[in-house]
Amino acid sequence: VTRQMVLNFLSEGAAINVLSKLHNVALHVVDVGVDADFGSIPGLLHHKVRRGTRNMLREPAMSEEEVSEALRIGYQLGSEAAAVGRSILAIGEMGIGNTTAASAVTCALTGASATLATGRGTGVEPAAFANKVRVVEAAVAKHCRSASTAEPWEILRCVGGLEIAAMAGMVLAATRHRLVVVLDGFISTAAAALAAAMAPGALGYLIAGHRSEEPGHKLLLDHLQLTPVLSLGMRLGEGTGAVLAMPLIESAVALYHQMATFSSAGVSEAAP
Amino acid sequence: VTRQMVLNFLSEGAAINVLSKLHNVALHVVDVGVDADFGSIPGLLHHKVRRGTRNMLREPAMSEEEVSEALRIGYQLGSEAAAVGRSILAIGEMGIGNTTAASAVTCALTGASATLATGRGTGVEPAAFANKVRVVEAAVAKHCRSASTAEPWEILRCVGGLEIAAMAGMVLAATRHRLVVVLDGFISTAAAALAAAMAPGALGYLIAGHRSEEPGHKLLLDHLQLTPVLSLGMRLGEGTGAVLAMPLIESAVALYHQMATFSSAGVSEAAP
Repeated sequence: VTRQMVLNFLSEGAAINVLSKLHNVALHVVDVGVDADFGSIPGLLHHKVRRGTRNMLREPAMSEEEVSEALRIGYQLGSEAAAVGRSILAIGEMGIGNTTAASAVTCALTGASATLATGRGTGVEPAAFANKVRVVEAAVAKHCRSASTAEPWEILRCVGGLEIAAMAGMVLAATRHRLVVVLDGFISTAAAALAAAMAPGALGYLIAGHRSEEPGHKLLLDHLQLTPVLSLGMRLGEGTGAVLAMPLIESAVALYHQMATFSSAGVSEAAP
Repeated sequence: VTRQMVLNFLSEGAAINVLSKLHNVALHVVDVGVDADFGSIPGLLHHKVRRGTRNMLREPAMSEEEVSEALRIGYQLGSEAAAVGRSILAIGEMGIGNTTAASAVTCALTGASATLATGRGTGVEPAAFANKVRVVEAAVAKHCRSASTAEPWEILRCVGGLEIAAMAGMVLAATRHRLVVVLDGFISTAAAALAAAMAPGALGYLIAGHRSEEPGHKLLLDHLQLTPVLSLGMRLGEGTGAVLAMPLIESAVALYHQMATFSSAGVSEAAP
């Protein structure tokens, strides 16, 4: 399905294509870890680090080299956006199974239990859900001894994913170049939380676009002290929640720059 | 202040000017009842019915003729919008004191107590707030015997306001011409609730743009079974909450028309 959805992005049939076009957002589809061979298909940014991550129940999801490479790719894309004069970035992703990694990251960063940090994702059955909780619990127990001692880099490497690493790298680049980053939902917020743990200055550049239905998202938002711009009950991912917040952020900037003040407009203020 | 804000609208310095321009919304500023003389100042739609409504503690806020005239003006403006090919309207208002009228309308329509339906408006002091609750209570007690027997037309005439009547007329016209109406906040929702009480078909055309902080708004939204698109904690009025919802509504329409289906995009669906 991940491969099919990537092809849908490239043929501009997905929700994110429609919304990006409508709101004049430049869309870049990046492959950092899809478990499929796209050859040299045009329109896709080919940066595959590996076909999928390793099984985090047995070993760290990524090697040192893999996590560095995925972070570097995101950092590079963020820096390129700054170089061409962008002032605001949105990050989002599409992948089957990546809420499991995001839940594990959430447990490791916040100390929450797997039961609290794990949700239904794209919609798994009750039995599969119970298994998902067990996987998150076991992966965190295996790799991350305690939230207080866990290093963000190690959390990312052991229970993260390639797309999470790439998005974290992009947040780090945005912080470096003073660009605002709009987060989509649970998984991009997990990436941003890791970046903020590595570089606390990142916090000042983050805007949460849309409140995910995933319970782990609330934990991360509280952890980062962010309130999402939108709560539309979507369960779509792809960056749609971030792009939908764009016109509202643009509105806030326009109000700040263009509105008359009460005094310039000659409007009386209420007595103090 | 109402007069000064109208002049601010005409010189394009207010929040609603900035947002309308940004989101390509045509803005029309209509005077139906400002207690000031605008002469023939250009840019304003001059439809003043009366300089302010009467004191609803002593007599009905409007005469039969006045309420008819204000409704007719809104109906005409709505019909004109349909005639020039608009498919979506937004209604909003600016006026000092009109949350009092909206709270009285809310009590009369929903049967809620004045204590529950009355809020702080633009920010009155505790003593003034207690007085506001008493005014709402007394006005409803004087004119509207019980919610179940009250006629919407009579509620509007006795405890409404000229801008509420005009907006109700616009909702009636929109229903007649099958246009969607985006509501701003508490006062426009009161107008829409009156229109829906007169013409139940109106319900299908209403979208709540923004959740007001006024407690009466929640009562009206529950009454109409509407959930606002946005909850940004604004307290601005002017139609800003409705206009900010526009790009999201536009997004929904674009997704509906432009997205590929899973089958047209060749994406496998989950087994049932």
